[in-house]
Amino acid sequence: MENKFQTYNEFIEAFNKRKEVNYFNVTPIALKELDEWVFIGNKSYLQHVSGKFFKIEGLRVKTNFGTVPHEWDQPIINQPEIGILGIITKVFNETRYYLMQAKMEPGNINILQLSPTVQATKSNFSQVHKGKLPIYLEYFINRKKSEIIIDQLQSEQGGRFLRKRNRNMIVEVKEDINVLDNFFWLTLEEIKELLKINNFVNMDVRSIISTIPLIPSSKIPFCYKTYCNKKEILSWFIDQKVKYELETEKISLTEMKNWNISDDCISHNNDDRFSVIGVEVQAKTREVISWTQPMIKDLNIGLVGFIIKKIDGVYHFLVQTKVMPGNIDIIDLSPTVSCSNYILTKPPFIDYFNGNKKSKIHCDTIQSEEGGRFYHFQNKNMIVEVDENEILDIPENYMWISYYQMRQFIPQGMFNVESRSLIAAINFI
Amino acid sequence: MENKFQTYNEFIEAFNKRKEVNYFNVTPIALKELDEWVFIGNKSYLQHVSGKFFKIEGLRVKTNFGTVPHEWDQPIINQPEIGILGIITKVFNETRYYLMQAKMEPGNINILQLSPTVQATKSNFSQVHKGKLPIYLEYFINRKKSEIIIDQLQSEQGGRFLRKRNRNMIVEVKEDINVLDNFFWLTLEEIKELLKINNFVNMDVRSIISTIPLIPSSKIPFCYKTYCNKKEILSWFIDQKVKYELETEKISLTEMKNWNISDDCISHNNDDRFSVIGVEVQAKTREVISWTQPMIKDLNIGLVGFIIKKIDGVYHFLVQTKVMPGNIDIIDLSPTVSCSNYILTKPPFIDYFNGNKKSKIHCDTIQSEEGGRFYHFQNKNMIVEVDENEILDIPENYMWISYYQMRQFIPQGMFNVESRSLIAAINFI
Repeated sequence: MENKFQTYNEFIEAFNKRKEVNYFNVTPIALKELDEWVFIGNKSYLQHVSGKFFKIEGLRVKTNFGTVPHEWDQPIINQPEIGILGIITKVFNETRYYLMQAKMEPGNINILQLSPTVQATKSNFSQVHKGKLPIYLEYFINRKKSEIIIDQLQSEQGGRFLRKRNRNMIVEVKEDINVLDNFFWLTLEEIKELLKINNFVNMDVRSIISTIPLIPSSKIPFCYKTYCNKKEILSWFIDQKVKYELETEKISLTEMKNWNISDDCISHNNDDRFSVIGVEVQAKTREVISWTQPMIKDLNIGLVGFIIKKIDGVYHFLVQTKVMPGNIDIIDLSPTVSCSNYILTKPPFIDYFNGNKKSKIHCDTIQSEEGGRFYHFQNKNMIVEVDENEILDIPENYMWISYYQMRQFIPQGMFNVESRSLIAAINFI
Repeated sequence: MENKFQTYNEFIEAFNKRKEVNYFNVTPIALKELDEWVFIGNKSYLQHVSGKFFKIEGLRVKTNFGTVPHEWDQPIINQPEIGILGIITKVFNETRYYLMQAKMEPGNINILQLSPTVQATKSNFSQVHKGKLPIYLEYFINRKKSEIIIDQLQSEQGGRFLRKRNRNMIVEVKEDINVLDNFFWLTLEEIKELLKINNFVNMDVRSIISTIPLIPSSKIPFCYKTYCNKKEILSWFIDQKVKYELETEKISLTEMKNWNISDDCISHNNDDRFSVIGVEVQAKTREVISWTQPMIKDLNIGLVGFIIKKIDGVYHFLVQTKVMPGNIDIIDLSPTVSCSNYILTKPPFIDYFNGNKKSKIHCDTIQSEEGGRFYHFQNKNMIVEVDENEILDIPENYMWISYYQMRQFIPQGMFNVESRSLIAAINFI
């Protein structure tokens, strides 16, 4: 891991120093204490007084996905605009580097995490914040200043966001760039190493990094054996879209069955579900010095995990289609297991993750969801390999997909953010 | 145009004979005379008593697309399920044939049009009609009976349908097939020839046929000059999705501004807009002998047209992104001109279609929209070529895309149905 700017250990040290420099205090507060956030129309929904940023709305969900057709209500984040999650890359002496940021988000359990060069909402562009334009954003907007390497629309959490996507970008610059405080040039190898640390690399980085193939497509053999060919997988994916129905209807927050809207928070009758709380933030490095905002809080540590297996010598991933209420197109490709209360609900294949059945663990870390909306929201991220001879009984909404096929489907936005978080961590193929 | 089953003229004759055999009477009726269709909740929406098939709902639309941000209300067809539009293909003596159907639809101006082997809604599969299962459907559902050649989700009219897609399929069979009355084996060349006749080939066939490349991808030179490369076009397409916003909200039909709900029909204050009417159908060949249903009526003949131009010797198409209220993902790629009242509104580039500016006409026909939902709804379909030296002033939501690039984007569902109707007619590349 050669890095001409600093060694790996020097980086870790410098990163930790940023925590001391950047004062950042986050306090949970009651919803009624929120500064510029108000309930509209008899607690119909919660929004910023400007009408910008995002809304917390009520959603009624009907789907035939799951064991029985079912229906439920839940709060959801509605932020229809498409933001930019962007990383600047530059080649120095034939080595490619990525410009990473030590950035604080109010929901981060450890406050500071490794973030992309830029995380910008459309509100940032149009300066609703009334603050400064995010630094380095010009390289993503002005096409003359960079060459686009990656530019893909990718979805956010379909369980919490309504049809939310961000533009995942990597742009290459040739000119010299002034590296500001909190920014570091890192190699992909180093970022992959940092992914082995709990809650270090933020969700936005993981999403962007997942789009970078470990093996350049020019080096993938033209013919390789796969369990199903591309056409068969795409037909299966359409089968699933035809089969599963998702009907959503916006309702007033107060109409939501099993949810309570108090002055403090929006919470479920069942304590172990997520809730909507307020937080107060005081910071020096944000575009605005201090602010309050609603956040989604979930203290459960969930599990997202892929089972992988060599089929004819080629790594295959066991993906499942999953209907989530905020999905843009009914289903996404989800990890083998993706579950908030996996200990209680015992989802299919859980035995390969908890040691009840034999598997080889490639990754096992705890990672945070995006700290701008999610408060202390963590998932165990695991990739486990089963023996080539292990026979798994695969339900019809699961499919073995090779690593190479995965690479072809990612740019089309077929993998959900939980999958991409896991794919980012792959360094063993 | 060799066809071992019948000559082209014999086919035309046989097709016309089907009109005599198949008695089919369609009468416009008042909405209140509809048999099993009812307004729900104080004329909130119109639906079948079974709750199946489709609903006519009210939609409030807001978008920043167009000259000014604007807002309007309109009725829209809500039929969320994904149907199958499928053609069976089979090779006889090294010639590929497609199994086409002479099929009547209530909205067809000439009643009988050339249709796919199968047009099936999910209601058909689940037999809400209480009639027979559509013939040949088994070849599309049972994967052991055929090989899938084409399987793509493609959108329907975003101006009239809410997020409606159908599964466009071509499946190849090896076994002998019993060719029933109303069915014919035709070659692609013959179908392309029939596309030169007004209102002969129905919209569903045009949509499916548009997915068949004229030039197999193996014969496309690996390097060919294009105006923009694939990456640049995809980034431009994302730019457009970020820029344009589409917000829709379901409202009661009676809440719609500028629309009147009478016992007869749902109509706009402005007479030249579309309306929702009832029709009564009596037929011998449908799954059910007679029925009534609502339909969308529009007596305007619109214009959909592509301008094409050779750039460095390669044909390029001038596409535009367009926001339509029922679009699945904000924008689709639309023809250069796509306009209901083109004589009145004079859209950009109209002069190349009406003879005011010089162009070479490759296609100029009148084609029907899908006759199951649209009553006497026609568009002029044109493809015109401008000289290589002609300089066009291109707004930011237009782009030159080569024929080869078009072929890569079609399977991803980027082209709207009006574009695909035009692409189907291409036989000069």
